[in-house]
Amino acid sequence: MSSPISYKKKVEFSETDMAGIAHFTNFFRWMEAAEAELFESLGAPLIESSNGTTSGWPRVRVSAEFHAPVHFRDEIEVELTVKQVKIRAVEYAFRIFRLGGHEPLHVATASMTTVFARRNAETGAIESAEISPALTEALERLAK
Amino acid sequence: MSSPISYKKKVEFSETDMAGIAHFTNFFRWMEAAEAELFESLGAPLIESSNGTTSGWPRVRVSAEFHAPVHFRDEIEVELTVKQVKIRAVEYAFRIFRLGGHEPLHVATASMTTVFARRNAETGAIESAEISPALTEALERLAK
Amino acid sequence: MSSPISYKKKVEFSETDMAGIAHFTNFFRWMEAAEAELFESLGAPLIESSNGTTSGWPRVRVSAEFHAPVHFRDEIEVELTVKQVKIRAVEYAFRIFRLGGHEPLHVATASMTTVFARRNAETGAIESAEISPALTEALERLAK
Amino acid sequence: MSSPISYKKKVEFSETDMAGIAHFTNFFRWMEAAEAELFESLGAPLIESSNGTTSGWPRVRVSAEFHAPVHFRDEIEVELTVKQVKIRAVEYAFRIFRLGGHEPLHVATASMTTVFARRNAETGAIESAEISPALTEALERLAK
Repeated sequence: MSSPISYKKKVEFSETDMAGIAHFTNFFRWMEAAEAELFESLGAPLIESSNGTTSGWPRVRVSAEFHAPVHFRDEIEVELTVKQVKIRAVEYAFRIFRLGGHEPLHVATASMTTVFARRNAETGAIESAEISPALTEALERLAK
Repeated sequence: MSSPISYKKKVEFSETDMAGIAHFTNFFRWMEAAEAELFESLGAPLIESSNGTTSGWPRVRVSAEFHAPVHFRDEIEVELTVKQVKIRAVEYAFRIFRLGGHEPLHVATASMTTVFARRNAETGAIESAEISPALTEALERLAK
Repeated sequence: MSSPISYKKKVEFSETDMAGIAHFTNFFRWMEAAEAELFESLGAPLIESSNGTTSGWPRVRVSAEFHAPVHFRDEIEVELTVKQVKIRAVEYAFRIFRLGGHEPLHVATASMTTVFARRNAETGAIESAEISPALTEALERLAK
Repeated sequence: MSSPISYKKKVEFSETDMAGIAHFTNFFRWMEAAEAELFESLGAPLIESSNGTTSGWPRVRVSAEFHAPVHFRDEIEVELTVKQVKIRAVEYAFRIFRLGGHEPLHVATASMTTVFARRNAETGAIESAEISPALTEALERLAK
C-alpha cells in the first residue's frame, strides 16, 4: 500500500468563527489543498484551458464527520488517500489530524468524489469526460 | 406536514472560483443561513454567552451531493427540513434550487447533524448538552 | 445628485471570527455585492467571455476605515456612490451602516478603484481597456 | 534596520474567482497570517480571554494597491514591516510578492492599522487599551 499524500497548515484567524473554533467549511478547503499537492506530485493539472474548453474536476459528493474542533494557530495535517478510480471520477478519503500534542489527534474523517469534466466556454455546457490512461494509472497506483 | 424553511440569495462574485461556478463550500454556508432563519423564526439563539459559558451548535456530520453548478448572480433557494430531533442533536435535510428558469432546478441535496454543546470559557472544554424542552418541542413540530 | 445604490444583508455565522465580530474582509465582499447590484441595474455585465477573451473589472486600489464592529444577524446596508469615471477606471465610495437601532449606525467608510480589463484566454495577458461610451455615460449620470 | 517578517504560501483553488485570479480579499487574509507569525515570534497572543474579558486587535484602517494578479498554485510571499507603534495602535506596511520567476514580482502594497482593545463578555462593550510596555518595546525594535 502506498503512502498517502500529506498536507500541513496552521489554522488562521480568518478561518475561525464566533464559537472560537475553525469554521467547518475550511476543512473542505484544506482537503482541496491536499488534492492540489497530489496533482502537483503527479505533474497533472487540476484545471486547464485550451481552445475554448476548460477541463476540471467539479465535486459530485462530499461528506465529513467532525470528531474534535481545531483552533487558531493549531497546526493540522490532512492525509489524503485515493479510494477508488473510475472511468470519469475519483473518490478520495481524508483524515484530518491536529498536531502539536503528544500524538496527532484525529479531528475529522471525510470523503470527496470528484468527476473529470469539460466545459465549453461559448455554450457553458459541462460534460463529464474519461480520465486519461496515464492519470488513471498514476491514481490507481496510489489507490493500491 | 409543516412547510420547510426557505432562504434565498444571489450568488456573489466572491463565491465563484476559477472554474466559473460557485465553490462548493458556499453551499454549506448557505445552509447555515437557512438554519439561522429557522432559529430566528423560533426566537431561539444559535449561540449565546452567559456566566463564562458559551452555548452553540457545532456540526458533527455534513454531506452533500451536487447535481448541477450555480453561477454568479444566479438566485438560489435553500429549503431546510428538520429531519430528526434527538436529546442532544438535530439532523437537517436540505435541497438547494436554482431559480430564474421556467421551474426551479434542483442543484444539490444535503444533510447536516449538529449537536447542542456548551463551552467553558476558562477551561475551553466542550460538552454536549440536552436541548431545552421548549426548543425540542418547537423543532419536533417542524419535523412532522 | 442621484441617489446611491443600496445593498442590504444580514451578517452570517460564517462571516464572524473568534473575536465575535464580522471579519473585516467581508466588508469588501459586501461592497462587491453592491457593485453587482449597480451593474445589474444598468444592464451591464461585470464579467463577460466571448471569442476567447474575458472582460472584467480587476481592483487596483481599495481602502477602508472601520468605525464600529458588526455582529452575527446584524442587518447591514452598503451605500455605493460613483465617485469618478475615468477612461479605463471607476472609483466608488462606500458607507456601511448597521441597521436595527433607532438610527442607522455608520460602521465603515471605504473606497474602491477598479479598472476595465480584457484577458486573452490563450496567453493569459491582461490589458486595461476603454470603458464603452454607453456605460461611461450611465456611470457619470450616477456620479453627478 | 531589522529584517521584516516573511510569510509564504501557495494560492489555493478556493481563493480564486471566476476571473481566474486570486480574489483580492485573500490578500488581507495573507497579511493577517504574516501578523500571526510576527506575534508568534514575539511570544505575544493576538487574542486572549480571561476573567470574562477578551483582548484582541480589531482593525481600524486597511488599504491596498494591486499591481499584478496572482493565480492558483502561485507561491506568494508577504513581507510585513512594523511602520509605527502608538500607545494603543500599531501600523503595519506590507509588500506581497509572487515567487517562482527569475525574480520575485511585487504584486501588491498595503497597510493596516490595528488597535489593541478589550471586550467585556457580558456587556459586549469594546474599549481600546494601552499596549503593554514589553510588547511596545518589542514592536518598536522591529520598527527601527
